[in-house]
Amino acid sequence: MSFTEFPSRLLENAVNEFSSLPGIGRKTAFRLVMNLLRRDSEEVRKFGESIIRLHAEIKYCEVCNNISDTGICNICNDPKRDRSVICVVESIQDVMAIENTRQYRGLYHVLGGIISPIDGMGPSDLKIDTLEAKVKSGGIREIIFALSTTMEGDTTNFYLYKRLSKYNPLITTLARGVAIGDELEYTDEITLGRAINNRNPYQQ
Amino acid sequence: MSFTEFPSRLLENAVNEFSSLPGIGRKTAFRLVMNLLRRDSEEVRKFGESIIRLHAEIKYCEVCNNISDTGICNICNDPKRDRSVICVVESIQDVMAIENTRQYRGLYHVLGGIISPIDGMGPSDLKIDTLEAKVKSGGIREIIFALSTTMEGDTTNFYLYKRLSKYNPLITTLARGVAIGDELEYTDEITLGRAINNRNPYQQ
Repeated sequence: MSFTEFPSRLLENAVNEFSSLPGIGRKTAFRLVMNLLRRDSEEVRKFGESIIRLHAEIKYCEVCNNISDTGICNICNDPKRDRSVICVVESIQDVMAIENTRQYRGLYHVLGGIISPIDGMGPSDLKIDTLEAKVKSGGIREIIFALSTTMEGDTTNFYLYKRLSKYNPLITTLARGVAIGDELEYTDEITLGRAINNRNPYQQ
Repeated sequence: MSFTEFPSRLLENAVNEFSSLPGIGRKTAFRLVMNLLRRDSEEVRKFGESIIRLHAEIKYCEVCNNISDTGICNICNDPKRDRSVICVVESIQDVMAIENTRQYRGLYHVLGGIISPIDGMGPSDLKIDTLEAKVKSGGIREIIFALSTTMEGDTTNFYLYKRLSKYNPLITTLARGVAIGDELEYTDEITLGRAINNRNPYQQ
């Protein structure tokens, strides 16, 4: 069925909001809203507030740009992590994917994207200056490039290498156990764990 | 990837809320939440509030039990609708599906479900008393049973027939253009429009 007329403006609004989410069509949005309507009022209030609070209160780690409830994230705050290794990733999802392998004990740096001229993402849109500042200030033994093995990932690796190699850290990339063309966050944990253990020196 | 550890409690809460929706797994929930995080704050506040307001402010029509922003819905309030015909449906989705055919000008009565012992739904869980009261008070020429053509729909039709036939209204059902076993809300508009035009007297 299509939705030419809604019996309620409130219903229509909620359906419109849900169908603005990626992969959620109007039909699915309607089902989700009807599901919420059948719940009790307190539960629905909590649902709505979790969204509002998430956006209003969430912070990004001042050091690594990871998502956090506090000014500095749990990983950067953890005294047991190796502060001389930085793993450079595209997104928070990638931090979580690598953390789930339990193979890595260094720190992260979340770029917040990848160089992609088609999407209008250039180096200045990414958190590269803060990464360079960290490397420049010393104490960094190794930088791991853990970006997706796509054209955009390769471009970003190359750009980062140009910016960072003058400070002479060891620059490594994930072992090519990650299939070419795959998105990092969809890689299974075993492959990803192996890839981070077998990381190789970066070669132009 | 699985989600053993979240970098943020706020993020985890929001993902949990989304994954409580039907058909939304944790992976999808995470993507939806990340999409919301990338939006601006005002937009996300509106999203959250649309959910809270929907539940807090929505009303059900006092006459037909349809969803409504006011005490009596637009359909029951419309002076151009034929008040002597009542179309009995399971849910609000079914009202919208029939309205979309633009073939029907009578009123509705939303039962709020269907008799289904497996789901613990008996006649007393449905809005049958108010339907009977309407029919009893007179002026109803025809009652159309527009329930899903399933075992539960047939059971409900039979039960309603027993309750309502003593008041001698014409009792009809949708023409069996609707395929047996199909859910009403998924039927295409042409089939559904034809089925409501070719409705037949109800036969036990």
